[in-house]
Amino acid sequence: MPRARAMAPHLVQPGGRFWRQAARTLAASVRPRTWAGTPRVPRLGSPLGAAATSPWVCRGRSSTSARAPEVMLTRERYPVRRLPFSVVSGEDLAAFERIVPGRVITDPEVLEASNVDWLRTVRGSSAVLLKPRTSEEVAHILRYCHERNLAVNPQGGNTGMVGGSVPVFDEIILSTALMNQVISFHDVSGTLVCQAGCVLEELSRHVEERGFVMPLDLGAKGSCHIGGNVATNAGGLRFLRYGSLHGTVLGLEVVLADGTVLNCLSALRKDNTGYDLKQLFIGSEGTLGVITAVSILCPPKPRAVSVAFLGCPGFPEVLQTFSTCKGLLGEILSAYEFMDAECMRLVRHHLRLTSPVQESPFYVLVETSGSRAGHDAEKLNDFLEQVLHSGLVTDGTVATDHTKVKALWALRERISEALSRDGYVYKYDLSLPTERLYDLVTDLRARLGPQAKHVVGYGHLGDGNLHLNVTSEAFSPSLLGALEPYVYEWTAGQRGSVSAEHGLGFKKRDVLGYSKPPEALRLMQQLKALLDPKGILNPYKTLPSQA
Amino acid sequence: MPRARAMAPHLVQPGGRFWRQAARTLAASVRPRTWAGTPRVPRLGSPLGAAATSPWVCRGRSSTSARAPEVMLTRERYPVRRLPFSVVSGEDLAAFERIVPGRVITDPEVLEASNVDWLRTVRGSSAVLLKPRTSEEVAHILRYCHERNLAVNPQGGNTGMVGGSVPVFDEIILSTALMNQVISFHDVSGTLVCQAGCVLEELSRHVEERGFVMPLDLGAKGSCHIGGNVATNAGGLRFLRYGSLHGTVLGLEVVLADGTVLNCLSALRKDNTGYDLKQLFIGSEGTLGVITAVSILCPPKPRAVSVAFLGCPGFPEVLQTFSTCKGLLGEILSAYEFMDAECMRLVRHHLRLTSPVQESPFYVLVETSGSRAGHDAEKLNDFLEQVLHSGLVTDGTVATDHTKVKALWALRERISEALSRDGYVYKYDLSLPTERLYDLVTDLRARLGPQAKHVVGYGHLGDGNLHLNVTSEAFSPSLLGALEPYVYEWTAGQRGSVSAEHGLGFKKRDVLGYSKPPEALRLMQQLKALLDPKGILNPYKTLPSQA
Repeated sequence: MPRARAMAPHLVQPGGRFWRQAARTLAASVRPRTWAGTPRVPRLGSPLGAAATSPWVCRGRSSTSARAPEVMLTRERYPVRRLPFSVVSGEDLAAFERIVPGRVITDPEVLEASNVDWLRTVRGSSAVLLKPRTSEEVAHILRYCHERNLAVNPQGGNTGMVGGSVPVFDEIILSTALMNQVISFHDVSGTLVCQAGCVLEELSRHVEERGFVMPLDLGAKGSCHIGGNVATNAGGLRFLRYGSLHGTVLGLEVVLADGTVLNCLSALRKDNTGYDLKQLFIGSEGTLGVITAVSILCPPKPRAVSVAFLGCPGFPEVLQTFSTCKGLLGEILSAYEFMDAECMRLVRHHLRLTSPVQESPFYVLVETSGSRAGHDAEKLNDFLEQVLHSGLVTDGTVATDHTKVKALWALRERISEALSRDGYVYKYDLSLPTERLYDLVTDLRARLGPQAKHVVGYGHLGDGNLHLNVTSEAFSPSLLGALEPYVYEWTAGQRGSVSAEHGLGFKKRDVLGYSKPPEALRLMQQLKALLDPKGILNPYKTLPSQA
Repeated sequence: MPRARAMAPHLVQPGGRFWRQAARTLAASVRPRTWAGTPRVPRLGSPLGAAATSPWVCRGRSSTSARAPEVMLTRERYPVRRLPFSVVSGEDLAAFERIVPGRVITDPEVLEASNVDWLRTVRGSSAVLLKPRTSEEVAHILRYCHERNLAVNPQGGNTGMVGGSVPVFDEIILSTALMNQVISFHDVSGTLVCQAGCVLEELSRHVEERGFVMPLDLGAKGSCHIGGNVATNAGGLRFLRYGSLHGTVLGLEVVLADGTVLNCLSALRKDNTGYDLKQLFIGSEGTLGVITAVSILCPPKPRAVSVAFLGCPGFPEVLQTFSTCKGLLGEILSAYEFMDAECMRLVRHHLRLTSPVQESPFYVLVETSGSRAGHDAEKLNDFLEQVLHSGLVTDGTVATDHTKVKALWALRERISEALSRDGYVYKYDLSLPTERLYDLVTDLRARLGPQAKHVVGYGHLGDGNLHLNVTSEAFSPSLLGALEPYVYEWTAGQRGSVSAEHGLGFKKRDVLGYSKPPEALRLMQQLKALLDPKGILNPYKTLPSQA
């Protein structure tokens, strides 16, 4: 396999100016040939012909393609029982038609895309999709459904990972797709107020034109809705820098189960008047209310972004490199991701991406974002010099050019795609104490032996978030039995989280108890009963079936 | 009054190195004489003899000094009615003695300090103070009180601003003073886990020794408890940089009204398993549960801190200077505070502090905190050059030395002290859209005319937080009538907040409706009823009396 070798980081010199200091001590040749292979950066939402079976290219798109194999109905695959909600009648459809005229969708072909999740693992059988444009219309719909005891599945961009965004049975799909207006943007404070159905990428464009960035960024940004992001408390690539949505969301407008509009759409940074009600709805996956508008604080747009891709000889060195970069990069550090050698072999084998650095047991991606390219480059070079000289890092490359930055990111971001081509994938999204993060991967490799094809670990190390993935040629109940509940018990033993950033949705709701004590579960049930006494909002999601 | 004049910023040159670029275009003389007056930085918690009547020096200290005039009982000053809770009996005291042996305080002299708030405006008449050491003891106490229908006032450092931290009637005072143990600190992630009664300043010291800082800083840090900070969702001086506690608090342990221990003390950065229950208790002022332990994310300690103190010709220039510094200082900006000329006259008159810059209609304090002094200095100089050349700023001075930095901060931090020496003070802590922030001050000056002695505005401009203060020789009902509800209505008209960072406590609970709609108030009442059905936790606080 053609791969350029290198014993020192290959520092990309945007103007031949920034890397002078490092160039004194480190090899500084730019290797355009490494990039000549042009790693394909997946363009989400763009059909790529045959490649469109990959979840990374078809997400948020219609899945009704005749070629796609049919997804088994959730009610048939899983042991779940329909709750005694009413069934949508012709009279109901007529009522909806009066509330949202011309926006009541019953065409089965159109509905199919909204009944199936983008991972194509769960499938509901809803017969109607409603497309309100305003929160008043949402309120009117929910008032009606509450009265009639009709279950509702709120849906944004349908890019969720745990089956939370599609119906389980025949719930009415309430789409935010037409609620896509920016309400205001404040140029001094950076506060954006918008409807819940705005697509993240479009919001990014909107605020970037004004010198700001969205405080979150996701692979699914081309399809996902900001309301859905808030409802699932999405983490993503900027979490390390800008933190949780619990801190950056300033206000929400939410329609409650009975149609009450709860207007907490404050655009203020500080407001200590009473309980902070909006927090209840961040991460509640549409089970406590339907988010109809969001007020969010956008940080100033960084003027310079650099990415270093590094090889580390072991996991302790990955951790020490993280400590070193926190110290030397300080306020400009914006991402610290890691992947193991198995991950690199998979992206090389399945996607023909070439590693830009020599083979290593671990790889680390460090991103800096700052307001001054020269200063950032100096900090980054000092960091690189230190980690190379101390042996924490054995090889590395740096990019500041947008295309090359994206190509380095692709090595990390496309692991999931490579995995999906490797066979059946068992996926776990865990939070663990950083120093034990990789132990579970090593442990599982020994435990599973040849039963598994690959056991890999990668993820947002800077946030303590491990993506643990196991592949086999085909689905194997015995392999599943060896994985679960073992993985959840192991995680609970470390006081970790069995869902770091994806939420629980339908598929993970029954493992909540591994990360939360019975007292917490009870209070969650009480909150659900208080806010949605009939349980019509996104039923069968988030809370355990047996609670 | 002796005051050094200057037409250009006086750049302090720590090593004669950082300010070279600015020195080319700006006068660069260091004026040690300006600082020779040594502005007194108040040492909170340290008795300063005669000056100890100032709230800025006596906070958190015993107020039982024979010299201090007695504070009127809250039940006599305010139209508030005792709710039908039981009265503490001898049997109850014996039961408490069994739960927290030797830590049941009934000595009236000792109790006095815990019955009166540090502003000396409200006073309860509790006959017993309990000092648990563990959450189990807190649980035991609350289980008993719940059973017996005894009201409880949770108390941290008693540094609150709105009368939330002392009893209104005879509520049992539940102090966190002995719950002051650090449980763990994680050197890689910066996660601190500690008991609720740890004093903020001691925690700061603990994490600073390990290369981190607390994500919040307050004037009251020498006395306030971290549990109280979280319970009131304290804002403070680092808010602009590190954001809200809703983002930085990772986990809480809370004892509910019935004695249930709710353990959500996660030390993980990411955890999307179910509803984020801890958020309920952040800012709920002890009315929904008693916080017994806190897990909080500490950012790395900045290696360099600089402060620029600047004069601006008008409020539009204050705003434009803010935009400019956000752009040029980027990620190192850590505070942007403003004060008007009246504030400067008051600190000069009452505290004999000297302005380091020429007289201006407005003053701005800009703080930078970064990981590299040289880079930070360059950014700061470029910013100063731009605002001076464009006329946004007419004069300024810069400090990097710790003592001088503190002296510049004192000009801003001691305004409240100067006001308290000016007469009776009417205090408002408002969030407003930044561009309208100062209009209310101008408006009130015209409205009040000679009725008011001074009408001043200052505060955390970077957070949209105005501290509006009005003084008169003595309390005047007619002046109060001219101020209220006018100030609240004006704020509501701008969709502002009538309590930006201080909370509502006892004194502001009835103005909640100016910032929150009836639907929100109703839901808050429902949450209170769910979590504390007997209403024993911090009664008469946060929620309106008439709701």
